[in-house]
Amino acid sequence: MKGNCLIAQSGGPTAVINQSLIGIVERALQSQKIERIYGGINGIYGLLHNEYIHLDELSHDKLLQVRNTPGAALGTWRYKLTAHDLERIVDYIVSREIRYFFYIGGNGSMKAASLIDQEAKRRGYPLAVIGVPKSIDNDLLNTDHSPGFGSAAKFLATCILDIEMDVKSLAKSNRVTIVEAMGRNTGWLAAACALVQQVSSDIPLLIYIPESAFSIEQFLAKVIETHSQYGYCLVVVSEGIRDEQGRLVGDEHAKLDPLGRPRLGGVSSYLTQVIEERTKLTARYVLPSVWQRSSIALCSKVDAEEAYRVGKQAVEHAEEGLSGTMVTIERCGGTAYDVVYGSIPLEAVASREKVVPTTWYDAQNCTMTEAFIDYVLPLIQGEVTIPTINGLPAYRHLLPVNQY
Amino acid sequence: MKGNCLIAQSGGPTAVINQSLIGIVERALQSQKIERIYGGINGIYGLLHNEYIHLDELSHDKLLQVRNTPGAALGTWRYKLTAHDLERIVDYIVSREIRYFFYIGGNGSMKAASLIDQEAKRRGYPLAVIGVPKSIDNDLLNTDHSPGFGSAAKFLATCILDIEMDVKSLAKSNRVTIVEAMGRNTGWLAAACALVQQVSSDIPLLIYIPESAFSIEQFLAKVIETHSQYGYCLVVVSEGIRDEQGRLVGDEHAKLDPLGRPRLGGVSSYLTQVIEERTKLTARYVLPSVWQRSSIALCSKVDAEEAYRVGKQAVEHAEEGLSGTMVTIERCGGTAYDVVYGSIPLEAVASREKVVPTTWYDAQNCTMTEAFIDYVLPLIQGEVTIPTINGLPAYRHLLPVNQY
Repeated sequence: MKGNCLIAQSGGPTAVINQSLIGIVERALQSQKIERIYGGINGIYGLLHNEYIHLDELSHDKLLQVRNTPGAALGTWRYKLTAHDLERIVDYIVSREIRYFFYIGGNGSMKAASLIDQEAKRRGYPLAVIGVPKSIDNDLLNTDHSPGFGSAAKFLATCILDIEMDVKSLAKSNRVTIVEAMGRNTGWLAAACALVQQVSSDIPLLIYIPESAFSIEQFLAKVIETHSQYGYCLVVVSEGIRDEQGRLVGDEHAKLDPLGRPRLGGVSSYLTQVIEERTKLTARYVLPSVWQRSSIALCSKVDAEEAYRVGKQAVEHAEEGLSGTMVTIERCGGTAYDVVYGSIPLEAVASREKVVPTTWYDAQNCTMTEAFIDYVLPLIQGEVTIPTINGLPAYRHLLPVNQY
Repeated sequence: MKGNCLIAQSGGPTAVINQSLIGIVERALQSQKIERIYGGINGIYGLLHNEYIHLDELSHDKLLQVRNTPGAALGTWRYKLTAHDLERIVDYIVSREIRYFFYIGGNGSMKAASLIDQEAKRRGYPLAVIGVPKSIDNDLLNTDHSPGFGSAAKFLATCILDIEMDVKSLAKSNRVTIVEAMGRNTGWLAAACALVQQVSSDIPLLIYIPESAFSIEQFLAKVIETHSQYGYCLVVVSEGIRDEQGRLVGDEHAKLDPLGRPRLGGVSSYLTQVIEERTKLTARYVLPSVWQRSSIALCSKVDAEEAYRVGKQAVEHAEEGLSGTMVTIERCGGTAYDVVYGSIPLEAVASREKVVPTTWYDAQNCTMTEAFIDYVLPLIQGEVTIPTINGLPAYRHLLPVNQY
């Protein structure tokens, strides 16, 4: 089946989401089954509004620049599809003679991809839909880990190490420093900060994740105890930690985001305030926010390469006749880290979340177990050199100017 | 005059403060006039409590590791000296036969160095006191710039570029993103984010600095205008921006820090809230906080080398018989960037602040002029490779364990 292919990016970007994009493009350029390569502008939005670019016209140099650029080079969109949207998207796919659709995204996007796959099947239109995983949150089920996670983990663990050098050297200032990690329902990123224990076993870091109910009283006691022992204290907290009743911590004034989910980001500010009100310590917080998913200087080489490989693999799966599946990463046994790529039905990932196993969390000491470190350590290995111009990174996105 | 030397670090650390420390140590090791090299632990605290280490006993490898470590390797302290403290410090200096005192710090520390110099002179004790400049804020007078500034500037400008790639690719999300830069009274760091215009002239970045009175109404109008033109908007704001009446913006609940200065850090949270309340846009903020002075992955090579050189220069000044002076960096004329090192009396720097010239700020467009870019661009050039172990930086501090 020869035909055109369409690629779109979805959801929150990662440092390596463009590695997957270029992996798909480079492999599609080699494919005997693929003619034109379209890139949907701003994700689903481009498919609904007939906005796309010709990815097969990019030069080799431009492809290389895009690989080393954070953000979603094609643009992305957060939006919940209606039945009518689905029809329009498949209309668009049919009208462009698209036979291969590659959708780079997280668990919400895999749901959308699955619906598109079903709609095409319903019409009897031959379309291969392949999901390409990406998630800094690492919350995709049925894959060992998600591209994007390793780089965000490396970013945050490096942040903790840098800040530890700062606060340790100002130990007389009596201060607790809180770093807020992304993670609405899962604590993978906050947990990854336990990696700093690989560098030194003597870093007073407390980790709090949504998978374990948060108690403000236990938190304050632990902070005071740690501070009295070390003279300073570092805390990393997932944005989505919840109390015993399942309420978001510090979220008295919660607002909703466009998808109707509570908008987060206030927990570190709240905890800072509580520490200052209830103890004799001072506190401050660091909020890397979207930078933890868009920094590429601290990107993991393993993560970047795997993100590129899942893109290539997606094209191979389509060539092999798969559809309605997502590429997975499977860790091989053995002492040295190695992976193979597999596939699972989109429905096995769609709208579901993988949480941190509580057996990997040491709630007593607010840290992670050795088993978790063994899991995450290989994912942050290696550095990527980003080309610079005049001391700043040379990035290349693909969006037309004022495309909004 | 042969004798021992003492080095101490003071105030907020920088990414390159240890470059200066090692510059001093390496040059002092070569000096015919210097015998032992003492490092005061935790700044002035060590001098008041007889806590120090022998820096001349460090191996070459250890010196190299310390150079590439953020934070103050010897520890530092924020503290206002009393007359009695001054006597005790000079007692300590006399008792250890210290003839050379190198103090790495900012304008407050240069005041302390000056007082120590005067106290030694009053007693007729032959002591050379040399100040070594460091300030991420770049607020030291009578030097072209301060070591530490270039690296923090590069860190923040890279942060803006990374985040721009993220928000541009999510342009449909209608969001304003605010980054809060350090800068209590001066806007050098926020201003340095204008460097991103070197990469692309089409980045919708608004800059607000304490040197120009802030109006919330003009701010909201500018944000709305910029957003409507580009579809997204980035803001960088100094923590210390003030309104027409000189009040800190958003600082209704100001508290005081140990030196009696208002504790800052709330302006970006406040502006985020105001945007959401008063416009139809959503907003979020990024608070790099102390990471902007402790990140070394984005350190500027020019800055690192100059920080090392001012350390070496300090020893040469002492050998030449100077005292009561600070090393300065003077920019040479000519098209290529080059500097020479000079000296000025500590009193010309002590407790004074260099602000951003308002002629360099374009208040209408909330950006910086070409003249400012010409000033700051050379300071962020070049990258430094930091050794890693297992995917994380290999740091080395010098503080004894539990030294607090």
